[in-house]
Amino acid sequence: MSDALANTLHRVRERVTPSPDEIDELEVVIEELVERTETAVAEREIEADVLRVGSTARGTWLPGERDIDIFVRFAPRYDREILEDVGVEIGRAVLPSGRLEYAEHPYVTAEYDGYSVDLVPCFRVDSGAEIRSAVDRTPFHATYVQERLDETRATDVRVLKQFLRATGVYGSNLRTQGYSGYLTELLVLEYGGVRPVLRAAADWDPPVRLDPADHGASTFGDPLVVIDPTDPNRNVAAVVSPDNVARFQHHARQLLADPGIGRFEVHSPEPLTQAECETHLARRATTPYAVRFPTPDLVDDQLYPQLRTSVRGIADGLDRRGFDTVRSTSFAGSEAVLYFEVAVPERPAIERHRGPPVHVAEHAEAFLDQYADADVYGPFIEGDRYVVERPREYRSARAFLESEALLDTGLGKDIRRRLAEGYEVLAGEDITALLPAFGRALRTFYEPSP
Amino acid sequence: MSDALANTLHRVRERVTPSPDEIDELEVVIEELVERTETAVAEREIEADVLRVGSTARGTWLPGERDIDIFVRFAPRYDREILEDVGVEIGRAVLPSGRLEYAEHPYVTAEYDGYSVDLVPCFRVDSGAEIRSAVDRTPFHATYVQERLDETRATDVRVLKQFLRATGVYGSNLRTQGYSGYLTELLVLEYGGVRPVLRAAADWDPPVRLDPADHGASTFGDPLVVIDPTDPNRNVAAVVSPDNVARFQHHARQLLADPGIGRFEVHSPEPLTQAECETHLARRATTPYAVRFPTPDLVDDQLYPQLRTSVRGIADGLDRRGFDTVRSTSFAGSEAVLYFEVAVPERPAIERHRGPPVHVAEHAEAFLDQYADADVYGPFIEGDRYVVERPREYRSARAFLESEALLDTGLGKDIRRRLAEGYEVLAGEDITALLPAFGRALRTFYEPSP
Repeated sequence: MSDALANTLHRVRERVTPSPDEIDELEVVIEELVERTETAVAEREIEADVLRVGSTARGTWLPGERDIDIFVRFAPRYDREILEDVGVEIGRAVLPSGRLEYAEHPYVTAEYDGYSVDLVPCFRVDSGAEIRSAVDRTPFHATYVQERLDETRATDVRVLKQFLRATGVYGSNLRTQGYSGYLTELLVLEYGGVRPVLRAAADWDPPVRLDPADHGASTFGDPLVVIDPTDPNRNVAAVVSPDNVARFQHHARQLLADPGIGRFEVHSPEPLTQAECETHLARRATTPYAVRFPTPDLVDDQLYPQLRTSVRGIADGLDRRGFDTVRSTSFAGSEAVLYFEVAVPERPAIERHRGPPVHVAEHAEAFLDQYADADVYGPFIEGDRYVVERPREYRSARAFLESEALLDTGLGKDIRRRLAEGYEVLAGEDITALLPAFGRALRTFYEPSP
Repeated sequence: MSDALANTLHRVRERVTPSPDEIDELEVVIEELVERTETAVAEREIEADVLRVGSTARGTWLPGERDIDIFVRFAPRYDREILEDVGVEIGRAVLPSGRLEYAEHPYVTAEYDGYSVDLVPCFRVDSGAEIRSAVDRTPFHATYVQERLDETRATDVRVLKQFLRATGVYGSNLRTQGYSGYLTELLVLEYGGVRPVLRAAADWDPPVRLDPADHGASTFGDPLVVIDPTDPNRNVAAVVSPDNVARFQHHARQLLADPGIGRFEVHSPEPLTQAECETHLARRATTPYAVRFPTPDLVDDQLYPQLRTSVRGIADGLDRRGFDTVRSTSFAGSEAVLYFEVAVPERPAIERHRGPPVHVAEHAEAFLDQYADADVYGPFIEGDRYVVERPREYRSARAFLESEALLDTGLGKDIRRRLAEGYEVLAGEDITALLPAFGRALRTFYEPSP
């Protein structure tokens, strides 16, 4: 191992280790919350235990992260309705200022003493493979990690998390499609430290398959597969996109080759200015289009996948009509934008249409009948087939984007509903109207890096 | 058979049968030529016989056709040099005004009493399979057909030839890539008349294989295969393009469905006018390009294949650079033109370039090194790969056509040599400079029919 990397990791370790005061303060809050929760459970004569889970429970959180997860684990004899009703009741008792969130079932979340607290009811099941709800698995994860993670490895997890964050691939939400905290912990445990993880990732030849408990039974199509030690049929890395596997590999190699501390720092891009934007448009000589509409009222884990689906669907629609998408992306704030950079904004008035082979008499006849009096060039013969050149339906990318056909592309369902109510198409230099609101996203788009 | 078709065929038969005077006149000329040739052979004490071959010998020529072919068939003991030297000597003696043409070996051709006469030396071999030169086969064809063709079938051949001519697919030269006289004769013999040929062709499901002598041994990739009865390894229809197989099918069906006599008439298109040309350009909104240069000094059978090759090569070059050729063609007179109609005359300043998968470390490193300081967007990651957007070499079809890269496309070799000496590129409305010289070809291009 190079001295430079050792030195950098040493400095990062210091930065990511919370101070004793920070730890003490957190401990006080967690204990208080656990006690209040146990009281609420007891008052309701419910058979349930109270668990601290998540990174704050196992000492792998990053300084500044202030997420506390408390689970109320109900005995399995209760049915789901009881769990939901009583779970929420307990949550409200412990966190009177809380509000309801909905995942598979409702739970209470609140700001508490400057911490962001989730109070989540789940079922006690015998193993991770027998869960009744996704959150039932969490206590098993907590146990698995807590039993194996000593202080050195916990710090390694913090260092790796910080690196993934700086690289922009930390977080298993469906916007980021990156590495979860649990996945980071498993990687550190499996490879035995942060440096082995980096070296391994630099050499990964996907599909990569890790199976810490050596019990995996299923196969997965994902580039990175880490079988959950608490559930042989689950890939902990299922959410990680191929891009983010590649990104981690790339940045791991960069770090090993040139281990500057800057590689652990999160850089937020400056918003692109109007002048910079115009320079890029002129330099690229492509044509940008923005489909802008009010953002549908969805949680991020629904919104971002639908935005991605919609961008793909429309880009495919543009491509199939010959407008050749160079790149595309989406942004969302109070307004959402599907963004397309197109190489060919206009096509000729005619399009070729290949007909049947001449020798297939039945189809040939139908084709000739169809175009006998139509306003087309041909039919004529090319090779063994009939061909006509007929008027093209959409001569410009803009005409297509503004047409009803847009709604027939592969859109996310709530996006389709929103677009059906109306949207705006910005083209060319008019897209600078997206500044400054989407300035950061546009800088990332026009100044792409790995 | 429909009365209408019978009626039409009857009228065509009358039209294509030469008058007794025309036949007598031809006979006199042929006999005279044969006699003069026999005298020239005798004077040189060469062992050779003199043969009348071709359509005028077997009564299948069309009125107005005035081609006479006389073959001098040398005994096989002579070597090729003798055949060439003495063959030309005899030709000059018989046709003092003649000039030399070159196929596989030289022969003399001349205008004689208003006929176009070829006097061709060949070898006497035992069978069509043992030929020493392509023309050695001709006497076998003559014999085969003469032995089988009665006057009815000979008239059928004339009718079919006339139909093929009206359809634009008659002639086995490499410009037309159509049906030879011999092939027409074989089709009539094999199917037993002109009507059966038409009905069969309407139903062809290529590849079609006919083997009149039932001795074919080889397989062929051509859509129409007619094994030469005088050579089991030769496809008489090898030169017929897939387009011309399809065209014959199409027109045979049209004739059967609607047997007007007009379908036997040769229509030469009127030259396209400048105003018509401009209307087509505006209506199609495509961009035409003409690469114009002095026609290389080649016989048609070399020129036209090279023009086709060159058009394909350049169209491929345009397509690979994203300029999307809609259609292309070539014309030749004293100047030659490679003609391209393009859907996308301009592309953006940048082009995407997909690099290696990130996980292939060695290639990834080379790629990153290559583009580290280059004037590109990226490298960035898409899926599992690196991508850069780099400056595009040719932003317009015109820039490509005017560049040295044109000479690197798949050109015919003599065309490449000519283009290397210089050429002109006409674009858009400037292509009307090709009028009126190429007015007929441009009408065919812009008003295509089967």
